[in-house]
Amino acid sequence: MTKISYVDKKHSPKKNELVVEFKVKPAKGISMERAAEEIAKESSIGTWTDLATMKPRIAKKLKPSVFSIKGNTIQIAYPLELFEAGSIPQLLSSIAGNIYGMKYLERLRLENISFSAAFVNSFNGPKFGIKGVRKTLGIKDRPLVGTIVKPKVGLNEKEHAKVAYNAWLGGCDLVKDDENLTSMKFNSFKKRVTETLKMRDKSEEETGEKKAYMPNVTAETNEMLRRAKFVKQQGGRYVMIDILTAGWAALQSLREADLGLIIHAHRAGHAALTRIPDYGISMLSIAKLARLAGVDQLHVGAIVGKMHGSEKEVKGIVKGITEKSSHLKSVFPVCSGGLHPGKVEALLKILGTDIIIQAGGGIHGHKKGTIAGAKAMRQAVEAALQGIPAKDYALMHKELAIALKQWGAK
Amino acid sequence: MTKISYVDKKHSPKKNELVVEFKVKPAKGISMERAAEEIAKESSIGTWTDLATMKPRIAKKLKPSVFSIKGNTIQIAYPLELFEAGSIPQLLSSIAGNIYGMKYLERLRLENISFSAAFVNSFNGPKFGIKGVRKTLGIKDRPLVGTIVKPKVGLNEKEHAKVAYNAWLGGCDLVKDDENLTSMKFNSFKKRVTETLKMRDKSEEETGEKKAYMPNVTAETNEMLRRAKFVKQQGGRYVMIDILTAGWAALQSLREADLGLIIHAHRAGHAALTRIPDYGISMLSIAKLARLAGVDQLHVGAIVGKMHGSEKEVKGIVKGITEKSSHLKSVFPVCSGGLHPGKVEALLKILGTDIIIQAGGGIHGHKKGTIAGAKAMRQAVEAALQGIPAKDYALMHKELAIALKQWGAK
Repeated sequence: MTKISYVDKKHSPKKNELVVEFKVKPAKGISMERAAEEIAKESSIGTWTDLATMKPRIAKKLKPSVFSIKGNTIQIAYPLELFEAGSIPQLLSSIAGNIYGMKYLERLRLENISFSAAFVNSFNGPKFGIKGVRKTLGIKDRPLVGTIVKPKVGLNEKEHAKVAYNAWLGGCDLVKDDENLTSMKFNSFKKRVTETLKMRDKSEEETGEKKAYMPNVTAETNEMLRRAKFVKQQGGRYVMIDILTAGWAALQSLREADLGLIIHAHRAGHAALTRIPDYGISMLSIAKLARLAGVDQLHVGAIVGKMHGSEKEVKGIVKGITEKSSHLKSVFPVCSGGLHPGKVEALLKILGTDIIIQAGGGIHGHKKGTIAGAKAMRQAVEAALQGIPAKDYALMHKELAIALKQWGAK
Repeated sequence: MTKISYVDKKHSPKKNELVVEFKVKPAKGISMERAAEEIAKESSIGTWTDLATMKPRIAKKLKPSVFSIKGNTIQIAYPLELFEAGSIPQLLSSIAGNIYGMKYLERLRLENISFSAAFVNSFNGPKFGIKGVRKTLGIKDRPLVGTIVKPKVGLNEKEHAKVAYNAWLGGCDLVKDDENLTSMKFNSFKKRVTETLKMRDKSEEETGEKKAYMPNVTAETNEMLRRAKFVKQQGGRYVMIDILTAGWAALQSLREADLGLIIHAHRAGHAALTRIPDYGISMLSIAKLARLAGVDQLHVGAIVGKMHGSEKEVKGIVKGITEKSSHLKSVFPVCSGGLHPGKVEALLKILGTDIIIQAGGGIHGHKKGTIAGAKAMRQAVEAALQGIPAKDYALMHKELAIALKQWGAK
């Protein structure tokens, strides 16, 4: 039988290899070397015992190499041939599959993936990206302002469209459905899309600005694609999808359908994988995969909002979805979750202007209602762009003044 | 604005409500009551602030009720109307979505879901189930014996088919691809299926037993469906899918394609969600969802093998996928991961005979090769069924004797 060793600190990653970084806490009595060996084995060609069916040429061609072990961080270089071109599910079944369950380990986190150009080239990536989105909306430099229709669920189709209309009228560029609103008894997908797009057209005429509606198409794959095609037929420019609860295979199907619609990616459920610092899969890795799959916009965290996510982490994610990587376009980072006008200044200071600022409660919770809430948000953005403190800008802008009084200036 | 309270300990769950049990560890300074309130809110109709757009009729109709808080466990009853009929992604975007990221919480685990009959009835569930699988294979009472072709990846199509042939010849009923083998440069899906099904036919003729091949169709949804149809055309009876890395929308698409193929579900990656006892999503919940979606066979853990998973947990999962639930058929539990003939007796003692015993290394690692390995496994099953200790049975069965010597009798 062929004995194979996977730890090779002299190995330097080759051009075509994928480099994966894991954080590892071995089980009691297991060394880091041994744990690294078992991870490399189970995520590629090996199993718990030597095999009569193993062949030397397989080990030679497909064996990954653990080339770095530093503290609790290991790096493994995987030969490209271990992965099916253009398949995210197969990649994850390898490098984020069985290994989490191994008794050799107490904790494991997939921290980062560096794809080789050959692997990246087997994916489409975003069809629009930041530039394409900006062009579609005719907005050159400023951050986009978006909202989620609230309450999350419960409004009927006409009420939903009305809330969207008010948001656009007040100054929102984008209006999206919430992650748990798909096609419900009290609000059916088709009627909602028709009604809301009507209001989009009306608000475009009345404001002279381009407006977009991002209907949530999350469903079983074929139903999802039917819904996306319906959006296209009705003159929509966008769809949104809950990428993790729908799953990678469906996300890839949506991109490959190539309907000419901008794809907005909600990450509902990500924190079940990403939040424990030494377990699961980092949001950075998920974000890079979403970029490969071809989303145009992705929720990355709001830092200053209601959800967990540090400045360092969110900056890292933004870098991961916008930095140069082969032919891939940049993904538009979406900041969402507990934002309101008082937080805009701080957010822009940290992340700059190439972001989408999305607020639900922070707009529809405004004491004077949705229109005033959207106005306050646009005013907060104007203030930040002009370098004027929100409090000062509020002296001449009453909606902003009310918002700051209601929720605070930070 | 409408103020809504979600904690209602006097509420008793109604017939149509879904009851979800969470384990909760609030953030510092947050009470369990407050944490429960925020979870119920964010997973249904609310957000972090009161809304101008909220309407009393929405709260009345759609508000969930936290009806139990005991220690760190809470139970919430959700009105049926919050969920789209027949959609697992939408359900998870609600009850396993944003809530994991909330700053109010330090830890959160979705522990269990009790579906109402009305919700269950919106899903097909398994097409075959345990009875249908047994009928297809002509095996009445005994546990099925399965193997995974090993090494996981690296064999070409003919080598793969040959290993499968040897496994069937030695006594395996089922042969499956590994979770990371899909369509590779060195082993293409179509050629592998054709070659391996040829060997299946040959082994059926030679052994007089029914044999099945479970090719891994995991891919982008449309490609996955094309692969499944190809399997059907070629006379296959089964497909396997990595349900978590492909995702729920694709899994539902596979079942809804209704190709007359038994669906074998691999759970690669589950432990990233399931393993931390107070975080993520329990395997029990995932298993129940997989049953709704319609898998016929599901990996549940091996207890005595190489992977994490206690006896109590695995028994709970088996119960969850086989107990009476509306029209749903029972899912065949698959025990896999580090099994070998020496472990069969202990496994059957714990789980009984309505299981599939799957061994990869424990068959292809046998000193005398795959045929002998499969023989040893069947012998171990015979011994256990006859109530004869494996060691005694080994006196008259040399393949078993070698396996026990090689890996131990326990």
